[in-house]
This record gives sequence, structure tokens and C-alpha cells, in this order.
Amino acid sequence: MTPAYDDANVFAKILRGEIPAHVVWEDDHTLAFMDVMPAVDGHTLVIPKAKARNIFDVRPADLARVISVVQMVAVAARTAFIADGATIQQFNETAGGQEVFHLHFHILPRQSADRVRPLPRPFADPKILAAHAEAIRAALATR
Amino acid sequence: MTPAYDDANVFAKILRGEIPAHVVWEDDHTLAFMDVMPAVDGHTLVIPKAKARNIFDVRPADLARVISVVQMVAVAARTAFIADGATIQQFNETAGGQEVFHLHFHILPRQSADRVRPLPRPFADPKILAAHAEAIRAALATR
Repeated sequence: MTPAYDDANVFAKILRGEIPAHVVWEDDHTLAFMDVMPAVDGHTLVIPKAKARNIFDVRPADLARVISVVQMVAVAARTAFIADGATIQQFNETAGGQEVFHLHFHILPRQSADRVRPLPRPFADPKILAAHAEAIRAALATR
Repeated sequence: MTPAYDDANVFAKILRGEIPAHVVWEDDHTLAFMDVMPAVDGHTLVIPKAKARNIFDVRPADLARVISVVQMVAVAARTAFIADGATIQQFNETAGGQEVFHLHFHILPRQSADRVRPLPRPFADPKILAAHAEAIRAALATR
């Protein structure tokens, strides 16, 4: 029922090193990096390195590794952005809100008075994304 | 930084059997049941039995168990509701959208042309929730 994995998706290209990303965490099974069209400051994505379209086809072991990193990054982003909370989102198929067809979790550090930017969102300044990634990496390093 | 767990929250009451729920899955570590104010038909919640306020304080082993059930229920709900996709949400602290302070994941089976009901949402008819729970349980039983 789930369509086949498409190697041409943008996260596959990031995993292959064909396009850059502002990486905050990498291990043998997962990669976490800044969303280039952030809904809020600090908007980070976590993906498995294994090919998976979404929650319908990801191997449970890969999903478990991803959620472990989601938690770690959520805690670090809360520290880095002095956030009051966090919103986690994970979209599956177009009807579910998915736009890139490689499984990913969104982590949005939230402030009490913030507003999630409406779609469509502009690309963020790469210098700002680099600074945000550095702040999250620093928080991860001191956990 | 995360406030202490509050045993008076409504999901703690469900876990203690003090208030009923339309349960679709239960094991030693997790419970899945229908949201009584569904954003879409089939809106299901998955929680750990262990006390955890949200992603900031849940034990990683409990989180891994929860996400495993989230995947299982998402697949079953897709079958039960002949859904085109699914949206997974998980809110942390009031700023992050959390309203009940026991960790929970929302699973929303989605149709291509559907609309998520806006907040605040009415309580659903219990007979409809019972039928939806039965449909998801049936899909879980045949996996």
C-alpha cells in the first residue's frame, strides 16, 4: 500500500552528500539537521539513514533509533533556545502533510507567545541556520 | 526544568480505571485509545503506562515502546479508515500545544480532501467512538 522509496528525494540527496545541510547530530543510523524553511527558530528534522518513505514502511528498529534522537534533540533545542515547550510533528503521505518522501520528524522549540509561520514559508538565511545548528550542537555536547 | 508529574491528569485516571476509554490496544507498557474530541475520524492516542509528563522526562525505553505502538496503530488506522495518509503529533508543555500532562502521541488518519476540525472541538458521540475503536482493533487483529 505504501509507494516505493524514491532515491531522488531531497533528504536522500543530503544523506548522499549531494546537497549540504546544517547538521546537529549524526550517528550510524540517524541524521538531524535544520529545516531550511523553518516554522519557528530552531526547527530541526531527524531522519533515519535507512531508506524509509514514512511511518508505514520504516523498520521498527530504525524508528526506535530516530525517536531516541528526536528526544535528545528536543531536550537540546529547549536548552539552546530557552524554549517553553516543543511541538513534534511527523507527516505521512500527501494527505498527512508529507512533502519530502523520506521519513522525518519535525522538532519545533516553542515559546509561549510564538506563532508558527504559515505555509508557504521562505528559506531562512543560511548564516542564521548555521548559528542555530551550532547552538543545538553546543547543547548536545554538554548533556 | 520539566515540572513534576501530576497524578490528577485525565490519562492517569484512565490508566487507573477511574474513567473509561475506547481502548484499541493495551500491553504491559502502553495504552492506545480514541481521542474523545477527535480532530478527524479515527483520531487515536498512544501513551506509556509509566508516569511521564512529556518528551522532556519520559524514559527512553518507554518512549521506544510508545513509538512502536504508534506505528502499529497508524498502520491499522490506515486500513480501518481506508486512509490516504496519517499525521502524527506530540505536544510538550502548554507552549508546545500540550493540554493533558501525560506523554501522548496523536495519530490522525487522513483523507486527501479532509479538514482537521478546528479547536475547540466538541465531544464525539460515544457510540461512534466505540465503532471506530472496534474498526481499529479489527485491523490490529488481522495484521
